[in-house]
Amino acid sequence: MANIHLGQHISQQFNEDLEEIRNRVLSMGGLVEQQIKDAVAALVRCDTALADQVIRGDLNVNAAEVAIDEECSQIIARRQPAASDLRLVVAVIKTITDLERIGDQAERVAHMALRLAEEERPKNQYNEIKDLGEKVVRHVHLALDAFARMDTQAAVNVVKEDSIIDQAYDGVMRQALTFMMEDPRSITRMLNVMWTARALERIGDHAKNICEYVIYFVRGKDVRHTSIERLEQEARAD
Amino acid sequence: MANIHLGQHISQQFNEDLEEIRNRVLSMGGLVEQQIKDAVAALVRCDTALADQVIRGDLNVNAAEVAIDEECSQIIARRQPAASDLRLVVAVIKTITDLERIGDQAERVAHMALRLAEEERPKNQYNEIKDLGEKVVRHVHLALDAFARMDTQAAVNVVKEDSIIDQAYDGVMRQALTFMMEDPRSITRMLNVMWTARALERIGDHAKNICEYVIYFVRGKDVRHTSIERLEQEARAD
Repeated sequence: MANIHLGQHISQQFNEDLEEIRNRVLSMGGLVEQQIKDAVAALVRCDTALADQVIRGDLNVNAAEVAIDEECSQIIARRQPAASDLRLVVAVIKTITDLERIGDQAERVAHMALRLAEEERPKNQYNEIKDLGEKVVRHVHLALDAFARMDTQAAVNVVKEDSIIDQAYDGVMRQALTFMMEDPRSITRMLNVMWTARALERIGDHAKNICEYVIYFVRGKDVRHTSIERLEQEARAD
Repeated sequence: MANIHLGQHISQQFNEDLEEIRNRVLSMGGLVEQQIKDAVAALVRCDTALADQVIRGDLNVNAAEVAIDEECSQIIARRQPAASDLRLVVAVIKTITDLERIGDQAERVAHMALRLAEEERPKNQYNEIKDLGEKVVRHVHLALDAFARMDTQAAVNVVKEDSIIDQAYDGVMRQALTFMMEDPRSITRMLNVMWTARALERIGDHAKNICEYVIYFVRGKDVRHTSIERLEQEARAD
């Protein structure tokens, strides 16, 4: 392979490329985190101006994905990286796809916020959504943190915590269903609450995907579609 | 770049690699198409054995994604492809991510089929789901066909047809909502119908993504997040 013979100089440049890419992914991640926070706040506080801002803001998330994708392709073409470096670039390409889809779900929550703002609002109705939203934002933050440090143990911990989100999600769904049954006039509104919960739960799944790419990169093994026990073994393996 | 100096022999091998990958993607696509068909049939015909088969079958879809991903990484490392060939490999990596997620949605429909099989079933209740399912399968088939021939015009046509799916989806949702309102005892069942419709609609989105990767590969431009008018211009451009 050509790059085995390349000297320190090229290798140093390549490291700088990778560092640059890593920073761009984290900056895209920060943007996406803010989008989720704002979307949930817009819904809970009935703030339509903030919801509109989130919807417009999704363009920035999309633009970040396209730009980082392009940069990854250029890096592969320019540096012809060896297997392990290539794995990092592939992990980045996959990570930003998930970040972009998290952005789409945040935009979806913002649309729900606009719809729910038109309806009569019972007091404290959306506390459960707020709680679920906070758990999901924390999840995404920890996933990006694991990515930033390429820390497989942290990545496994995030995957394990997925059940916390599932529980909060089930709680919102059960409560919404109960309201629907008790008062059919609430059906349309409760459906919007359910779509919101579903969107937030999907964000949790994307965060989990990002953690699996971290393990894939560090251990060189594809751990998608494996059990948590196997994940832990892989993360600990030497 | 090293590969500019490589002769016909290596280039021929690389073409064979790409052909092999293309065939694997199409074979994974065929598997996924069958999963959607079976999941919808299981739901409509109340066939729990078929639903179980779809749920088990998702493992094969996941395994195909992992294997093709690995092969793509090996090809990049071994052949050090130039920009346009690299674009094809990146398009493949992205395409199989969407195929795998289509498989997840088919599995989700199969789970709904199991739940709905437990409930009393009114006659012809699921005709609309059947109709939506057929439209979605056709959509995926056309997207894979565009991928197989790397035909940008066909890809644009699929993206344009997305509204056919949206209309069928809206129809199912409106009908389910009406049933809920008229008879609150149907709420749980109708929610499952709605989740199914949502899963099928998501499959349509993934098919659209695949078409956008085809255009990205052929034209070398990233057309995600652009309008249909721009897409058509890109597809026609010389």
